[in-house]
Amino acid sequence: MDMDELLERQREFAAARDWEKDHTPKNLVMALSGEVGELTELFQWLTPEQAEAAMRDEELAWNVRDEMADVLLYLARLADVLGVDLMAAAEAKIDRNEHRFPPRDRDDAAHDPRPTGGDVGS
Amino acid sequence: MDMDELLERQREFAAARDWEKDHTPKNLVMALSGEVGELTELFQWLTPEQAEAAMRDEELAWNVRDEMADVLLYLARLADVLGVDLMAAAEAKIDRNEHRFPPRDRDDAAHDPRPTGGDVGS
Amino acid sequence: MDMDELLERQREFAAARDWEKDHTPKNLVMALSGEVGELTELFQWLTPEQAEAAMRDEELAWNVRDEMADVLLYLARLADVLGVDLMAAAEAKIDRNEHRFPPRDRDDAAHDPRPTGGDVGS
Amino acid sequence: MDMDELLERQREFAAARDWEKDHTPKNLVMALSGEVGELTELFQWLTPEQAEAAMRDEELAWNVRDEMADVLLYLARLADVLGVDLMAAAEAKIDRNEHRFPPRDRDDAAHDPRPTGGDVGS
Repeated sequence: MDMDELLERQREFAAARDWEKDHTPKNLVMALSGEVGELTELFQWLTPEQAEAAMRDEELAWNVRDEMADVLLYLARLADVLGVDLMAAAEAKIDRNEHRFPPRDRDDAAHDPRPTGGDVGS
Repeated sequence: MDMDELLERQREFAAARDWEKDHTPKNLVMALSGEVGELTELFQWLTPEQAEAAMRDEELAWNVRDEMADVLLYLARLADVLGVDLMAAAEAKIDRNEHRFPPRDRDDAAHDPRPTGGDVGS
Repeated sequence: MDMDELLERQREFAAARDWEKDHTPKNLVMALSGEVGELTELFQWLTPEQAEAAMRDEELAWNVRDEMADVLLYLARLADVLGVDLMAAAEAKIDRNEHRFPPRDRDDAAHDPRPTGGDVGS
Repeated sequence: MDMDELLERQREFAAARDWEKDHTPKNLVMALSGEVGELTELFQWLTPEQAEAAMRDEELAWNVRDEMADVLLYLARLADVLGVDLMAAAEAKIDRNEHRFPPRDRDDAAHDPRPTGGDVGS
């Protein structure tokens, strides 16, 4: 399945259940936020080491895949309702990030006392 | 660009900046949550009508695409770090939802006083 | 109960269960975020009118109070762990907002085509 | 300042700016979520050790207090708009948690291979 097929299946799913009227931009942003909250809850009490090993716990791994799927489904549905091409937007953002954060010299990194952030967002 | 290419570009991006050590599961879940917060802020004071028309405001539309891209980028990066196949997880979830929420009879819907929820998550 | 008593009860609660080691700043920020996600889920599919009437639905009202309590409990616990005086911080922020957003002339408001935002944050 | 005074100042603040119409339950839930996102962004790239020491960095400490204040302000405003007594709800929740999570025997805790969670929410 690629992104276009995913959008198409969601469109049919919503139409068959008469849920299109519920899928307003604000409602979908809230639903996306709620699903990220559920994903967060799976990781909140794990130590960093437990979090790294999360996918070796069968039940936890199932739940992680389930919540990540929900996040993608609502993000994709929101994109479709708004007319946003999600993959094109992501590609454009990576291009911008390449210019905004030039690759670092690793010797510099070794002397940096603060976290670099890995901040490709905001 | 498809999802595999997106993952590959992010892998190279993180490696070139020595950010892999920052990209722990917990940190990426937090980053994803922060980006959804930024997306939420774009819509929070809009009326439902203004939200529907969001993409006709050029500056707002640019910001919506930018924040949605960030959400996808961190979600995809988290999936890569955890070893989750995001598109397969989404497809499996749509399959489960098809069984969990049988299509409604529209006459029933007309008589239902409560929101159906459109709840394909949780 | 005032804020100091709330902090004290949470301190005793965490100590009696040996949960202090789990209550790191990052974990508590994630827990706060998760609870806001649960609160969001209560409202996401409601129409604006249904949301205004939420507290007249007994079951929904109970859940809203329960989730809002959780948000406050984790926010207060985070403040305590970090040594932040939450009420003083809130008072200082209201003072700053009074200067940052001078009261509007209602005639101006009537001519403003865009939402003012009510944005006392960010 | 106590919670009642905070609510009163926010009421006057919103009324003086004609923002009451923006302060619908759904909008305030979104604003709360957005502010928690900003708080999350302050902590997302910090190591657990850096996060513990966050308040010793003057600039970061200022931002943490500022974002925590915003979270409390929107939570309190939402409570006021919905007619929820936030402190009473928090006290009732602590009472329920006392029964739901009996204090642990520390010897048991020592043998528990999984995180206890410290989960006073959900």
